[in-house]
Order: sequence, then structure tokens, then C-alpha cells
Amino acid sequence: MIHFWKAGVVIIGNEILIGRVLDTNSQKVARALTMMGYEVLEIRKVKDDVDAIAKALKELLYEANVVVTTGGLGPTYDDVTAEALAYALGLPLEINQKARDMIERKVREMRLEMTKERLKMAVMPSTSKPIPNPVGVAPGIYIKFGNKKIFALPGVPAEAEAMLDYVISELENDSLLRRAEACERLENVREADIADIIRKVAKMYPDSYIKTHPGLEGNRPYVKVCVLASDESSEMAHRKAKNILNLIISEVMGA
Amino acid sequence: MIHFWKAGVVIIGNEILIGRVLDTNSQKVARALTMMGYEVLEIRKVKDDVDAIAKALKELLYEANVVVTTGGLGPTYDDVTAEALAYALGLPLEINQKARDMIERKVREMRLEMTKERLKMAVMPSTSKPIPNPVGVAPGIYIKFGNKKIFALPGVPAEAEAMLDYVISELENDSLLRRAEACERLENVREADIADIIRKVAKMYPDSYIKTHPGLEGNRPYVKVCVLASDESSEMAHRKAKNILNLIISEVMGA
Repeated sequence: MIHFWKAGVVIIGNEILIGRVLDTNSQKVARALTMMGYEVLEIRKVKDDVDAIAKALKELLYEANVVVTTGGLGPTYDDVTAEALAYALGLPLEINQKARDMIERKVREMRLEMTKERLKMAVMPSTSKPIPNPVGVAPGIYIKFGNKKIFALPGVPAEAEAMLDYVISELENDSLLRRAEACERLENVREADIADIIRKVAKMYPDSYIKTHPGLEGNRPYVKVCVLASDESSEMAHRKAKNILNLIISEVMGA
Repeated sequence: MIHFWKAGVVIIGNEILIGRVLDTNSQKVARALTMMGYEVLEIRKVKDDVDAIAKALKELLYEANVVVTTGGLGPTYDDVTAEALAYALGLPLEINQKARDMIERKVREMRLEMTKERLKMAVMPSTSKPIPNPVGVAPGIYIKFGNKKIFALPGVPAEAEAMLDYVISELENDSLLRRAEACERLENVREADIADIIRKVAKMYPDSYIKTHPGLEGNRPYVKVCVLASDESSEMAHRKAKNILNLIISEVMGA
């Protein structure tokens, strides 16, 4: 049984917990980590609250090699992710000179003024590396903590997404596995009717993840079958996923 | 300071953690609970795994009065939510006769066969009340556990949404507060420029939640300001939110 490197995701923001905003960041982050060979153990959405964020970070870091957070890096009073990181890791907060330079450059480019609210975005736990934000002003925060890596990205989806490349490049040489997925829609089939076959094939390939998604088109039922497989490279993982999927299809055809 | 009743949400499904599927259930559930006067403490997304689900349930139930889960109620081998509920609460699993009747009726209506996979959806922790599923086959599970209430809904978004009405009606007489929201877009304003005003008003109304969402339209910046307020009824809460929002607007205008 393969042991994947473990990851956790923390989505920070009251607007998520009151359901005003649909969180799309967790899917993007989870997808990227999964394809890099990580097993995402848990996604937690917590309030803009130092204790709640720090608790989630500490609990996830207990098992996870990597934790990625989004949200809480902006200029407003309720952006407390840097403080929560410092508290959770026992690191002092300080003005990060590189982050300050990044913010000042952005502020000049956008012909804005440097306010104390904007300067606040340069306050990070000591040992932080600021992550350049190609879209907005707030830099992300990267902290290596022992053998763990923590990445804090902004909550604005376009910014978080743009900074995921940085995360991926920092993880490139950690997990030696990659994952890939293959899906196929089987027509005129019901989920319950092929459950036995799926269970059998899933037992044969415990390192792959097979999932069925039932649906209806008019009166005709269908099942989308997806296989997520892992191997040394994305290409090899994709080939493996295809092979398992083909085995399922031939079993269903023969049933 | 008002103490809201507390709620937790658990979204169950590997397809969420590998980022294949965008979870929209947590937003819908969190929104409904919020408007019923609950404070959603945390949303956790966990794998289709008995231990992971049971751990999330137990940890959230420690603080929350209500926990709503979605996912893991279907006929396939990886649907283990009923088992996890039983394990977390220390209740035996049994075939729930009412749930079985619901499933049999649905299966007849849809001209399907009763398989052991479909029968599995009637297996619930003892003391469960099955929640009718107006859209699909799998009944939901409602458990009163001491002074806590647990609702397990299916993962298919149309089914989960249809069953939210049941949850709401069961909570009607618990929390005596309701919440409502008012939002307004302020043009030609930047988030950092009004951060001070927002902080000041937020301090004046600690029971309300004020949040700014910055944006750009072409070159013109805007900030959407939202106020979530609570009161005895939805109408009174809405009036309060409007009043606070108007105060912010007049402060910004005067600044």
C-alpha cells in the first residue's frame, strides 16, 4: 500500500461560514496537491479568528507534511492569518522587508498611498518568505517549519490561483509520486447495479481511487466512473488510470 | 454580547478532497443555519472513511448544538456515513423499517429492483428518524442525541438542498434569533481607505458582522459592504442590518 505524503487545507473567512460566498479555492488547492502526489486529509473552513485558525493549523500539521491556507491576508481589521500562523508556530511577528518592498512597488504601480493598513500586509512570522502576488497587493506567506511546509495564500480566487504555481514549484522535489485521473460515462447503467463490480476492482487496486457519479439524462440513467491512479510521473499515472477504467468497462459490458 | 447557538457542517466525500467535484452543499447548509440564528463554527471536509467522519463528528459535537453532514448515504461500498454516525455516537446499526419502506416505495415507483446495495441505505443507527428524500432514493438520517441534533443528508446537491427544509423545520423552535443581511456597493472606494471606518463601526456593533469585498470594474475600484445582523425575527434583523449599513455609508461619504 502506497503511503502518500499528506496535506491539509484551511480556508479562512467568516464570509464562507455564513454562506455568503461560495468557496472555490479549496477545490483548486486540493486538486493541485492531489496531482502532485499528496493525499489531502482534510479541508477545514474556519472563521477570521486567531484561535480558530491556529487550532486548525496545529491539528492539521500534526499529520500533514504540507498545509495550504487561503484568506485573511488583506489590509482589514479581520485579516488575522499572519498572527494566527505566528501563534500556532510560536514565531514572533515582524515586518518582512521583502514583503514590504513588494507592497511598496505594487502601491506605486497602482498610484496608491502607503497606509498603515497596507503596511500591515508586510507583517509576517519571522523566517517567512513572502510569495509574490501577480494579481493583487497582498503577498502570500511561505514558512518552512522543521520538515513541514506551510503556504498562506490570499482569499481572492484569482490571486490564490495565480500563486498556486509557486506552491507547486516548492513541492516539486518532495513527493516522488504524481497522480492522474481518467473518467468515462457508462450509458443505461445504474450505480447500484455496478456497485459489486466497482467494489471488486477497487479491492484489486487499493492504491487507486475509483468513484461512481450517477446521473439521469431524460429517463436514461448513466454513471460516470472516474479512476485516480498514481505512479512515478503524470503520464504513467494516467496510463494506469486508463487501464483500470478499461477493466471496469469490460466487466460492466460482460455483466 | 449575544451567544448564538452553534453549528458544525461536515462534507463527506473523497471526490471533494481530490478536488474533482466543487462542493456547493456547504455554502447552502451554512447559509440556512446562519439565517436560522446559528453560528457555524467550522465546515470540515473529510474522506469517505469511518474514522475520519467519526472524528469530525465528535469534535464538532463537543461545541456545536447542531451538526449537518452531506454525503456518504448512497448504495456504494464507500458510503459509510451511517456507520460513522453509529460509531461516533455509540449506537448500534439496524435496519430502519421506515427508511426501508421509503426506499421500497421509491424503487417501485422507479421500476427498479430491490438489491442488497439499495437495502443498505435503510441501515441506520438506532433511534434514527429517516428524512424523506423528495428527489432521489437515499433517505437522510436525523438523530436527536441528548440536547444535540444531527442531520445527515445525501451528497447529491439537488437532494441535499431539497432536504434542507426538513432541517430548518426541526430547528424552528431552538434558536430564538434570526439573522438577515444587507449589502451595498460603494463606487470609487478602496478597501484600505475605508478600513478605519469599518473597524470603528464593527466595534460599535459587536453582534453584527461587517465585511468588505473589494473589486475593480475597468479601472474604477469599488467595495461591496455587507452587514449581517440578528434580531428576534428575520424582518427585524434585516432592518437592523440596513441601519448599520446606512451608518457606514454616511461615514464614508463624510470622510
